[in-house]
Order: sequence, then C-alpha cells, then structure tokens
Amino acid sequence: MSTLFEKHRPLLDKALDACAKRYAWSGWPESPSTKLHGEEKPAAGKARFEALLGSDFPLEQPGEVARVGEEVSPYTGEPLGVRYPRVDPDCLFPAIHAACPDWAIASPETRVGVCLEILQRCGEQLFENAHATMHTSGQSYVMAFAGSGANALDRGLEALAYAHKAMQDVPATARWERQFGRDGVASLDKRYRLVPRGVGVVICCATFPLWNTYPALCASLATGNPVILKPHPAATLPVALVARVCREVLSEAGFDPNLVTLAADTRDEPATLPLVQHPDTAIIDFTGSPRFGNWLERNCPGKQVYTETAGCNSVVLESTDDLTATARAIAHSLCQASAQMCTSVQNIHVPAGGIRVGSGRASHADVARAICEAVDHWLADPRAAATLCGTLFDPAVQATVDRYRDMAGGRILRDSAPYENPGFPRARTATPLVIAATESDRDWYRQEVFGPVAFVIANQSAEACLDDATGNARDCGAITSHVYSTDAVFLERAVAAYHQAGASVACNLHGMPINFAAAYSDFHVTGLNPAGSACLADLAFVTNRFRIVQSKFMGLAPGA
Amino acid sequence: MSTLFEKHRPLLDKALDACAKRYAWSGWPESPSTKLHGEEKPAAGKARFEALLGSDFPLEQPGEVARVGEEVSPYTGEPLGVRYPRVDPDCLFPAIHAACPDWAIASPETRVGVCLEILQRCGEQLFENAHATMHTSGQSYVMAFAGSGANALDRGLEALAYAHKAMQDVPATARWERQFGRDGVASLDKRYRLVPRGVGVVICCATFPLWNTYPALCASLATGNPVILKPHPAATLPVALVARVCREVLSEAGFDPNLVTLAADTRDEPATLPLVQHPDTAIIDFTGSPRFGNWLERNCPGKQVYTETAGCNSVVLESTDDLTATARAIAHSLCQASAQMCTSVQNIHVPAGGIRVGSGRASHADVARAICEAVDHWLADPRAAATLCGTLFDPAVQATVDRYRDMAGGRILRDSAPYENPGFPRARTATPLVIAATESDRDWYRQEVFGPVAFVIANQSAEACLDDATGNARDCGAITSHVYSTDAVFLERAVAAYHQAGASVACNLHGMPINFAAAYSDFHVTGLNPAGSACLADLAFVTNRFRIVQSKFMGLAPGA
Repeated sequence: MSTLFEKHRPLLDKALDACAKRYAWSGWPESPSTKLHGEEKPAAGKARFEALLGSDFPLEQPGEVARVGEEVSPYTGEPLGVRYPRVDPDCLFPAIHAACPDWAIASPETRVGVCLEILQRCGEQLFENAHATMHTSGQSYVMAFAGSGANALDRGLEALAYAHKAMQDVPATARWERQFGRDGVASLDKRYRLVPRGVGVVICCATFPLWNTYPALCASLATGNPVILKPHPAATLPVALVARVCREVLSEAGFDPNLVTLAADTRDEPATLPLVQHPDTAIIDFTGSPRFGNWLERNCPGKQVYTETAGCNSVVLESTDDLTATARAIAHSLCQASAQMCTSVQNIHVPAGGIRVGSGRASHADVARAICEAVDHWLADPRAAATLCGTLFDPAVQATVDRYRDMAGGRILRDSAPYENPGFPRARTATPLVIAATESDRDWYRQEVFGPVAFVIANQSAEACLDDATGNARDCGAITSHVYSTDAVFLERAVAAYHQAGASVACNLHGMPINFAAAYSDFHVTGLNPAGSACLADLAFVTNRFRIVQSKFMGLAPGA
Repeated sequence: MSTLFEKHRPLLDKALDACAKRYAWSGWPESPSTKLHGEEKPAAGKARFEALLGSDFPLEQPGEVARVGEEVSPYTGEPLGVRYPRVDPDCLFPAIHAACPDWAIASPETRVGVCLEILQRCGEQLFENAHATMHTSGQSYVMAFAGSGANALDRGLEALAYAHKAMQDVPATARWERQFGRDGVASLDKRYRLVPRGVGVVICCATFPLWNTYPALCASLATGNPVILKPHPAATLPVALVARVCREVLSEAGFDPNLVTLAADTRDEPATLPLVQHPDTAIIDFTGSPRFGNWLERNCPGKQVYTETAGCNSVVLESTDDLTATARAIAHSLCQASAQMCTSVQNIHVPAGGIRVGSGRASHADVARAICEAVDHWLADPRAAATLCGTLFDPAVQATVDRYRDMAGGRILRDSAPYENPGFPRARTATPLVIAATESDRDWYRQEVFGPVAFVIANQSAEACLDDATGNARDCGAITSHVYSTDAVFLERAVAAYHQAGASVACNLHGMPINFAAAYSDFHVTGLNPAGSACLADLAFVTNRFRIVQSKFMGLAPGA
C-alpha cells in the first residue's frame, strides 16, 4: 500500500463522501485574508512570486529548444519576463514514452497517492499562485486565490475521487470455476490490469488557468497517463508552478518527472496542434474557444476529447418579490472577473411588457434600469469594485467592448468605462457595457461575447424569453442559465425547457455570487449542448482514460 | 419504486455481486437437454419457431414500406421465408422521437426493471430462439441455445448491472449550504437528472446475433435511449424475436413500444448508413467486420461508437507437459462453430525448432501433426462433430476456405472437407483447413480469415513466436490470445508482451472450450488494439450513454 495514499486517505474519503452526497465542502482555504493566515505566509508567497520575475522559470525538461515568455501583467502593463522552456515534440514524446512503463504498472493507490500529494503541495503555494494568476489572467488577488486555489484544487480532488472510484470498480484478481460437460472442473486464476490510454494533453485557458487543469491532470495522471500541460501564452506562470510541483513529487516518489511536462508556446508559434495530433496523444482536455473546441471534438478520431468551451449564458426574468436583490444578483455576474468567466451571464431576457414585482409591476425599462443601477452599486466602492472585477486579461477584450459599443449606438443602457483600481493605476479595467436588444439583434447575442458585455433582451412575453434563451442554449451552448420567477408553474416549465435544451439551470439565486460552481456538487458541463463535454466531474469524465486487460491461468498464476 | 425492478431485484443484485467478484455464474440454463427441461418445453419452442416460417413476422412498426427477408438455413439450404418490416427512416425516427420523453423521465429503477423483464421474457423463448439462431447463424442447436441464450443474456444482464451502477452513482437530490462573505447562508436545493444521449443503433452480426445485442440494448435502453436493432440480413429472426419481446414488455409497462424497433434490410439495399448517420442517432453499437467498424469509429464525430470487430487471434506454443491435451484444446477452437467466433484461434505460432514436451521434445512437425490429429479427434463422432462445428453461415465462408486451399498448395497440413451432419444431409459444413506458414506468409495471416482456416506458423524461436503474435495483435487486432508454456518466466514475459500490445491473454487453458468468454468475469474487448472498443462490460461501456443536467433552487424547489 502506498505511503502517500495512506497519508492522504482521509482527504480522499472526505471527497468521495462529498461527491456522493454533494454537499458544500472545500479541502482548502478560499480566502487569502491575513486574519486567517497571519502576515508572514502571504508575504512569503508574494516574495516567491516576485523572485520568479524576469528570469528563467526553474524547470528542466527534455527537448528544450528555446525559452519563451510573453506574459504582460494586466495590472501594471509590464512584462513579467518569466521565460519557460519551449520543447521540441520530437524529443519530448520519446522522453515521456520512456517515463511511462513504471507509472503504468504502479498500483492505482500509488498513483492516486501521488496525485493527492501534488494537490496538497499545490495547496501550499496558494499565495504565489494567486499573484501569478492575478498578473496573467487578470483576476483580482482575492479571486485568484480562490479561483486558481481552493476552487480549482477542489475540482482536481473531485476528479481524482472519481478516477479512484472507477479504478476501484475493477478487482485485481478473481478465481473462476465451472464445469464444462464431463471434462471436470475448469479452475482459472484471473488477473485484471488497468492500462492507461496514452499521453494526455491538457490545453489550459488564459482566464482560469487551473480550474480545468487540476481535474484533467488528476483524471489522466491517476489513471496512468502522462500529461503535457499546454498553458495559454498569456497565463503560463500558474501552470508552470503546478508542473514544477508535479515533477518534484513524481521524482520524490521514485517516478520519472517527465510524466508531467510543460509545453509553453507563443501566440505566433502555437504548440497545440503538433501536440494533439501526435500519435502518442490519446487524451485531450481543452478549455477555450467554442470554435477550436468543436474542431477538436470532430477532428481527433480515436482520441478521447473533453472540452469546456462557452456559450451564451442567459437569465430569464419572469417575476420577483425583490427587484433590487434580483438585479444585484444578476449585476454581480456581469461584474465578476469582468465577465470573463465561463459562468458569466450575457443575455438577460425580460418580457417587453415588464414583470410582476411582489404585488405590483415593473416595466421593461424599470428592470433594465434596476440592473444598471445594481452594477453601479457593486462598483461604488473602488476597493470592492477592484476585488470583484479584476482586469481585462488581454487588450482584445477591450476591443470587443469597443466594437459592441460602436454597434449599439443609442441602444446603450449602461456604458463601459475603465474603473480606477486603487492598487494599480495602470490596470486594464472596464465596467460592464449593457445593451438593449430585441430578437432582431439575435446575431449580436447568439454567440459568446467574451468580456463585460451584456444584453437586456426584450422578448414578447415570458414564454418568448424562455424560448429564446433555451433555443440559444441548445444551438449555441450554455454553461450556466438562470431563471427568476415566483411562479412555481413557470419555474417548472423553465427547468423542463432548459433541460430539454441540454442545459442545467439555477433558480432564484440571490445573496451569493451566482457564477459560483461548486466542486463535489455542481455537474459543470452537461455535454448536451455545444458548450463542451467535460462534466467536471462524473464517471464519464474518467472511465475512458484507462482500459482493462486481463490474463487468466489454468490452475494458479505463476507466483500465486 | 418500480414493480418490475422489485420483482427482479434479486437477479440484479446477484449480477452486481458477480461483476464485483467476477466468479462463474449464469442467470439462465446453458443446456437445452430434455433431462433438464423435460420433453414438452423444447418441443413447444421448436413448434413456435416452425410456425413463424414462411410468413410475415408479427411486428407492427411505424414507417413500414415493405416486407423483406432473405434468410436461408445453412442446415437445409431452404429459405426460411420469414418476412420482416423494412422501415422508412423518415417515418421511423419521428415515431421514435415521440416515444422518448416518457422514457427519458422515467426513473432509472423503472427503466432497469423493464430491461430485467425483457431479459427474463427472452429467457422464456430460449428454445425457439435456439432454432432461429441455428437456421440463420448456422450454429449447432446446443451452441445456439447457449450462445444466443444464456451466454448472451448474461452479457446483457452484466451490461445492465453496470448501467444501474453508473446511474446509481448520481444522487437525485442534494442540499447545499454555505456562507458567502457577509451575505448570510446560501441554501440551495439541488436536483440531478440523467438525460439520455439519443437514438442508439445496434448493428448485429450474422454469426452471434444476440451476444452483443443484449448488452448494447440493455446499456442504451436502461440509460433512457431508444434503440433501433439493425440485424444482419442473414440472421434477422433471433433479433426480431428480441424486438418483439421488447415491444411487448414496453407496452405492458405503459411505455411506447417504438422505444425498440427492428430495421430489417437486405444485402442489396442495406439500411445501416442512413440509420447511423441520422442526426437523432447518438450511439452506435457495432459488431462485424474490422473495416466497417473502423470506418464507424473514425467517421461519426459527436456520436458514441462501441465496436466489436475481429483480429487475428493467436496461440503461442512454447512448451507443454501434455502435447495431446494442448493440441486438443487448440483444435477445439479451430472446430467450434467452424471458427466463426470472434474468439476463434487462427494463428498458431510454434518455434521452428520444436518445443519441450515434459522431459522430452517434439519437433515442429510433431506439434503440427498433433494439432491436426486433435482436430480429427474432435470430428471422429459425427453427432459430436455436428454439435461442435455447426455449419458455415454463408457460402462466402466456403469460398474463403477454397481460396486459402488454392493459395496454400502443398503447404496444407490438414485439408478441409464437408463433414456429414447426421440430422441435416444438406448442411453447409467444412472441417478446419490447417496451413503451414512461415513469417514470409505474413500477408496471409496478418488479418482475420473468417471461417475454419488456421495457420501453424514456424517462427525462429519461442521469442520470435511471441514477437510475431503480439505484433499482429497490436497492429491487426486480437480478441483472444493464448500461450502454452510450462516455464513461469516465459509466461510472465508473454503476459507482459500481450498486455503491451493491448491484448488480454489466456495461459495453459485445457479441458475446457478455450473460446469461452465468461460474462461477469472476462472483460471482452480491450479497446487497446484494432479489434474494437466494446468491453462488455465495464463502466466505460455505459457511462457515456447518458449525461447529467441539474437544477438548483434557492431555498426549496417548488413542490419540495
């Protein structure tokens, strides 16, 4: 039995229980507050981050042909200057190949133990990782600490728990005895072995670099597959920090560190295609644009492809008892991480004739105004606004905002503008742009508009709101969907309509960040609409990452 | 809770236990002997089979455009004259679509209960089904009773047990509570719903029409998907009998019978492509040729494809304590069902310098002779030979035997000839053709030669035998592989080499039919070599046949 497995078994058992019962639980702290951690730990983490700047990232990998690095902090506008190995696939894959056999024959417990240790060690570098995420993905410090920290680690542990469960389902041995005719009893000693599929390539995204990375890493690695982490060139550092931990833990556990490698690249010379198309690559985990995700789903026959892309997340607002609270819940989603989350709301469907509010009514204009005012409410305090909104990870996001502002013309309900970030005067910031739309503007909103751009769409009726929103989910994808209604019958119909469209739905969420997707509890991507297939996590996310071979011996196996 | 589920729960629980511990167990009788069943039941079954001949098969389905039927008994040479509905996909798919919603929202227990009842009812028509299988697939009566009976039903129940397990893994509801900042406790009521993928098309093969059909049917149907059974035009009746049972049970349980339909076709106008390419089709289960199976794997993006095709199954003979027993075990495989099984041995690798037998040696020629004599041993008694060999399901199999006889010329170790079938003087029969080969004949044996053709291949050494056999498994596929050796070190190396090639392996099987693959115990197809991906059954065989959607409600769900 593996020492690391035994060491971390309580953590795994807790995760298995949480997955089964799907209650709220986290294995790591979500807040970076010095009240929790004291002054020293956060400061040391920041110092370790700063020590990495302007230098070669400490990572020795086979096949390094150059150092690359083009990260620019969205907070300071300054290049980070960290340089990562660019590797030649022709050298990398043979080195990975050589690393595989020992890992493949290691027991599932050994591999799960190593993955648990990796997660624990990554949990120890939450502070430097939060700064790394902040100055690449552009998240606020608080958000980065949680989103690339506890929330991401929990998703990783969740996937690991499922991988463990799937592997545990196959016994290692069996005795099989039966009579065939008059030939006497045939007695067989059977051995079952789990066999990994091949190299797993994990393509990480720029805005939440680790949230999908930990689950894909754990799911593939635990089931015996080596993993190549392919970070976004704009957000490499958080992933490099993880790669380094993986390689350290693997080495310490007596395995070849090349079981986890980093394949950094640049925007001009992307490394992705040669990696995913390599014949050794058997598994692809992708987070990013719907276009490339869909291409991968359709053009990698024989490989397992798991995607999380995007869609046009919607709100249908039918009625509410508290318009201010509802508007604030929605507005929070428009602001959080500058709407660069896969769970950010984009399309807000409100009946043209307005909605019932308590015992009265609010016109469509009233509702739109309430939402815009709620945005302003969240932005009123500069420090809170900075924590909530973070920055735009890339100038292209600002360009999108500008393009929609030009298109919208007089239909702007709330204009976008930079907000002043108290700590970083040069931060690239933008508050939500809110646009009034009708169904004749479907071309605008029937796609993901990446960044702080939202549409308040006037559909003819609540039913028409639902039809439009669910049709868009079905055709264009959706990761989250929301309904606000005090009418139980409408809610039931809405849930059915979203499910019919292959989408999950949240009803009447107030008083919490509605973007929040909970590890161990929320199944993230349904796989039934174009926004991807990577559930994060269920059995389907892990069962095809390994296969089973068996040997059977008449009598006893040698050495048995 | 479903009544049918409760009724059959002990059977399901037993299957779940057998899958977990992988011991020998069967839910149905394997022998048609009147000693077990009495005289009446077998006779009644035969009468029911005969009553079907020369008439329209009783099946009313939407979109019937014609009746087709081109089955010819390999035993009598006479057409069966049973006519099945040919259906127009443009009418069939809308009818299926209409049947889906009630089935999709039925509880997993309800659906599993219906599938259990289907299996039980199919178990009650084992006798007519055995005759149907015999006079289409050409199996002997005894083989047909087991192979399309108990063995196939067990595979179906096994897949159903896995489907149940995978669905049970997702709870129906959860309560989720946590604090977000100072906003108070957020309390969510969560509902998880399993959603089927879409229409499952099951493409059945001619020689074992139900062995893969029950598992695919149960796996898809239990998880909520409607199923179209596409039988081989040469072996439609066994599948039609199952389709009829499914439709009866579904109707009685209050569901639309169109959840299971039969799509009969002819060789000249095959129905397969329009079915698998239809946009409603989401799942394809295929048994048949490697060429079409591989095409399906690569050309159905976005659909779940499970295949069982074929490869070149091998024996490596390194040493033995009992040459006669070993030769008989191998020869049994060459004879059984005229080597038309996916587990039939084709390539027998024997070192050119001979092998060790006990304390002495046998030359390569001695071994070849022993195998040919063992074939003759199995064929000595005409009644036993008929039970073992059955017939050739199609004249094309005889043509293959003839082609290889011509190619082999003077290299024939044992010629093929018809054997006389005691009950059926016009039966299409052929005993095994055994050909001497060397590695320069690799073009002959590096593919599936479908029918009673085997090669005794002289490789330079035992190591060369292993290299050749495992290389062929890796490149050309293998469903079963055998090693005979008394050397524990060689066995260990052989197991490692086959596993390295993505193949399972059986060692020193004697005194039992070595072709036998046991439900609940043997993982059938590894998915790691070109012989297919349908494990029959593991979690990977079922987990992707459904997805999960969720709804979450602040406070309580309406009606909760």
